[in-house]
Amino acid sequence: HSWDLLLAAAFVSDAQYNRNIPFRTSPGALRLYYLYNHWMMRTATYFFIFLNLSLAIFEEPAVYPLPLLVTSLLEVLCLLVFLARLVHFGAVTLHGTFWRDTKNICIMVAILLSLADLTIYGILLEYGVSSIRWSRIVRPLFLINFAESRQIRRAFRSIRNTLPEITYVFLLFMFSLLMFSLMALKLFGERNLQTAEGLPYFRNYLEIVFDLYVLVTTANSPDVMMPAFDFSSWFALFFIAFVIVNTYIFMSLFLAVVYNNYKKHLKNEIRKLAYMKRRKMVEAFNLLKEEEGEQLVVREGRWRQLVQLVAPDISNSHRELLLRISDDEQKGFVAHVPHTVGGSSWPFDTRPSSPWRGKLTFASGRAFVWAFDAIILINAIFIALDEQSPYISYAEWVFLALYVTEILLKVYTHEPRAFFGKTQFWNWFDTLIIFAALTATVLNATLKSTTKYNSQQVLDIVFILRVLRLIRIVDSFQRFRVIMNTLINIVPTMLTFGGLTLVVYCVFAIIGMELFHGKIQFFPAGSDAPHALECGNPALKDSLFARGKYCKNNFNNFASSFIVLMELTVVNQWHDILCGPTWSLGAGVGLVQPAKLYFIAFHIVMVIIIVNIFVSFILEAFFVEY
Amino acid sequence: HSWDLLLAAAFVSDAQYNRNIPFRTSPGALRLYYLYNHWMMRTATYFFIFLNLSLAIFEEPAVYPLPLLVTSLLEVLCLLVFLARLVHFGAVTLHGTFWRDTKNICIMVAILLSLADLTIYGILLEYGVSSIRWSRIVRPLFLINFAESRQIRRAFRSIRNTLPEITYVFLLFMFSLLMFSLMALKLFGERNLQTAEGLPYFRNYLEIVFDLYVLVTTANSPDVMMPAFDFSSWFALFFIAFVIVNTYIFMSLFLAVVYNNYKKHLKNEIRKLAYMKRRKMVEAFNLLKEEEGEQLVVREGRWRQLVQLVAPDISNSHRELLLRISDDEQKGFVAHVPHTVGGSSWPFDTRPSSPWRGKLTFASGRAFVWAFDAIILINAIFIALDEQSPYISYAEWVFLALYVTEILLKVYTHEPRAFFGKTQFWNWFDTLIIFAALTATVLNATLKSTTKYNSQQVLDIVFILRVLRLIRIVDSFQRFRVIMNTLINIVPTMLTFGGLTLVVYCVFAIIGMELFHGKIQFFPAGSDAPHALECGNPALKDSLFARGKYCKNNFNNFASSFIVLMELTVVNQWHDILCGPTWSLGAGVGLVQPAKLYFIAFHIVMVIIIVNIFVSFILEAFFVEY
Ligand code: NA
Repeated sequence: HSWDLLLAAAFVSDAQYNRNIPFRTSPGALRLYYLYNHWMMRTATYFFIFLNLSLAIFEEPAVYPLPLLVTSLLEVLCLLVFLARLVHFGAVTLHGTFWRDTKNICIMVAILLSLADLTIYGILLEYGVSSIRWSRIVRPLFLINFAESRQIRRAFRSIRNTLPEITYVFLLFMFSLLMFSLMALKLFGERNLQTAEGLPYFRNYLEIVFDLYVLVTTANSPDVMMPAFDFSSWFALFFIAFVIVNTYIFMSLFLAVVYNNYKKHLKNEIRKLAYMKRRKMVEAFNLLKEEEGEQLVVREGRWRQLVQLVAPDISNSHRELLLRISDDEQKGFVAHVPHTVGGSSWPFDTRPSSPWRGKLTFASGRAFVWAFDAIILINAIFIALDEQSPYISYAEWVFLALYVTEILLKVYTHEPRAFFGKTQFWNWFDTLIIFAALTATVLNATLKSTTKYNSQQVLDIVFILRVLRLIRIVDSFQRFRVIMNTLINIVPTMLTFGGLTLVVYCVFAIIGMELFHGKIQFFPAGSDAPHALECGNPALKDSLFARGKYCKNNFNNFASSFIVLMELTVVNQWHDILCGPTWSLGAGVGLVQPAKLYFIAFHIVMVIIIVNIFVSFILEAFFVEY
Repeated sequence: HSWDLLLAAAFVSDAQYNRNIPFRTSPGALRLYYLYNHWMMRTATYFFIFLNLSLAIFEEPAVYPLPLLVTSLLEVLCLLVFLARLVHFGAVTLHGTFWRDTKNICIMVAILLSLADLTIYGILLEYGVSSIRWSRIVRPLFLINFAESRQIRRAFRSIRNTLPEITYVFLLFMFSLLMFSLMALKLFGERNLQTAEGLPYFRNYLEIVFDLYVLVTTANSPDVMMPAFDFSSWFALFFIAFVIVNTYIFMSLFLAVVYNNYKKHLKNEIRKLAYMKRRKMVEAFNLLKEEEGEQLVVREGRWRQLVQLVAPDISNSHRELLLRISDDEQKGFVAHVPHTVGGSSWPFDTRPSSPWRGKLTFASGRAFVWAFDAIILINAIFIALDEQSPYISYAEWVFLALYVTEILLKVYTHEPRAFFGKTQFWNWFDTLIIFAALTATVLNATLKSTTKYNSQQVLDIVFILRVLRLIRIVDSFQRFRVIMNTLINIVPTMLTFGGLTLVVYCVFAIIGMELFHGKIQFFPAGSDAPHALECGNPALKDSLFARGKYCKNNFNNFASSFIVLMELTVVNQWHDILCGPTWSLGAGVGLVQPAKLYFIAFHIVMVIIIVNIFVSFILEAFFVEY
């Protein structure tokens, strides 16, 4: 292919995938740019980013311990890959741009910090000094700053833009909290009341502030009120006013601020994206244009070559159809300069605006659909019945056979290519579920006949797949299908929030492990270790933490930390989860205040900001799609 | 005044206060209509509505017991007042309209039901049979259906319109819940796990459904997961998936549906209101118009008379100003037919669009403001300091004197009428707070000098007033003032939600009292009653309910029920609050299932619908005002 065709194709691809890298256009650099955007390179980058993040699983405190040498070598490998990727990017992009871009500086600094920390840690360890691997909290920077993570970066930008307004509301909220705390101190402080545990109630100002902050999250909802309420019923009014003002009004206000900003920001981003897309499309057109009478046009031959390059996997008939649309007067050239993004003129936007959009097309008429709905319902009844009876496990084979038949029939009536199209979510779903279930069931039957034992793990998977199959029934009701399609359409964007959450969780998990690691131990039921019921620590005797059997909620390794952080995101009982151990243990080692600050920081970042952005996103997506 | 002037004034008033009663226009009926809308009649109606609702406080189970005869007589009185009001309305409105309006039918049926129930209850009591006063749950109907409660009715209409869509999402949510429960049964049911209390874990399908419903509300967040999590860390993934799908996605979807509907509905309501307002304004104009050349106009004299009738409390200068605006060419007549609602032409909309809108105007320049900000800050420090020192109580007198001086200065520099204008929220706030504090402090000093004792009640009030005074500091920061003004502006509408909540709470409190009343008892600390620590019931020994000292959370009277319902609205620990007693006690009397259903119904109505409408309202108000 000629250079200008390749360059035009690069522009079109950039427009398609919303890339915005100012690359150099010399033939050598262009080839490097193609390589840079190759899916294998991008996948490899993501692989090493996640490998680097998941090193925390193998480093001390480890879920699966590996020797320090192995993890260090893996980390150095990751850092080298990142460096190589950065150098590759530097070779592709314009030099001025490269050094002005904070992303690149950020990655370089992160690499240097990681290497420095690793070296220092290694040397100190040689001399027998154990230090903290502090550079581990910069690892999420790689996820944020590599050009592949555009969506996550956009989300972070959105957060940064929201911060000033959030701060004002937060200050007002803190003012309200401090005022209520002052009132509480005056009202309850001198009454010598006691909590249910017999501790003094509402005596110390800072503790009141903290207790009322917990009440805003509703986590200690009736408990914190009970002593005052027992003393006089009228005091309930204080807490009702508090909850209305702080939990209902202020928390809604946070949502309002975040949502407002989200909408505004989204509009700007979409406008910018559309502008950028159009510019790239025009550039591509200008590269390939020729004069035809008074018009500037792209001839059919070049158009075909371009489409071949940009979308190699569409079928011939599909391409000819697209050409008919672009060249609607059939003059042998495409003359329109693209006025709309993703319009049908010029090199059409080959990517659908939302990946999984599409409707399930059935094998044949209504009778067929209803028959299989009936089968699913009968299957549901069988699943709910007792598993042990042999007839029911025979029935399972019948159901599997029926489902496989259904899929084969559908594939037969449709073209297989159409059936497994990118937008046919339900077809993919069915096929994957059924064949996974088939595989697992066969595997289980083989295991059973050879070893006489069921593998519980395989059985668990079979159970889950069997139940998941029932989701299909939803698709038969038009009303539900609309809602389900809305949900399915927003899955890809939801993954962005997964990335965002991952970054926040990583940082907080690493800090949490440094602060709270090893404070409590989990012993399986029936263990005869000393103080097994008190999580290995006599100080926790009779605490709510031990009574609730929360011992496994600890920061002893990366996986546990993630689960604790998930529980803190859900907020309920967080003061018990987080403070239980540190309250009882920490007074001596000064951990009470860090634990409080740790949670408040986490609550502000995760619940007040990220969860609210998530809710805003669902609201907006719902309004647009539904 | 002439009949047409009075009629025109009635139309203008109706437009002003968003009334839409098709009244008869004969002179007699018109006089009745004026009487019907008189503020004393409306206040009296509200008074009897709330008296009727608050009867539940004095009826068995009573907070303050009154003899049955007294409460019955009061109820009959209320019903007679309602009947009289209804007859009055019938005399005012057109007959056809009266009987077609479901509101009127509703009130009549409610009156009849109440009377019938009262009679039957009385007769049965004569014969020694005790029955249920079931008609008490129709009492909120009076609050909803009297024409005065337009806002609450609008909110209910909004709920009714949302119901179909909510139902679809709810069915899908229930489907998801049932599917997850099925998976949980298959995964955990046969593993012989135990909860922290040693009970079997996840064995029974219906109990799993309920436990997972509780998890959606996050109330049993880590507890329900711990046994499975202790068994294998991988099972945490099940609960994480559950929380993401149901708590985050589905609950946001509920908010989205409610918010979407709220916005749509609000737009329709505003359009309808605007149309109605304009029509009334045109009708009023048509009544008073005269020919002037080619124009139809209202002469200045009649205009003045009309304004005198419609807005008697505005000052002369204000009225002349309004006339200058309406009659901008100063020809001696008002010629514009009102094209916009609340525009400055014709009889201007005298009511500001939102009651408390306004900006605080300061007594004088910046120095004055800053001086008083400094005083407030010093006051805050004094409040936080120890109360016992005599110097600090002397300081309080100084502060009070300073504040009073400030208010007097401000009143002096402004006209008193302007200072205490309807829209001067902060002036009212300051004045009320300071004079209440002054009164209470003087009262307390008098009590102290005469009886040598502080009255703790008075002291409490003084404390609260003293702290409330500090809110003023917020007004000095422009950023905070904007947010505060937004909040203050939406207070009147928030009262609608108060009414809505009152209706729902009344109904649920009355049902709750019938179902759960007397199951548990509260004993003050140090009581030597048998089983005082177990809420008077040995079955509650070692329950979480007794351990948390929740005995006062009961349905033993109307006030307690309201507080329990408030706690259920906050959701946290609700399964302990509601189920604790009935779980342990109810198994015998079959109360376990009713308690579960009771909460689920309350959760759907209050949290899923009303709290979401409240949040939608705050979101929308914030977007409009901020
Ligand atoms: Na909670």
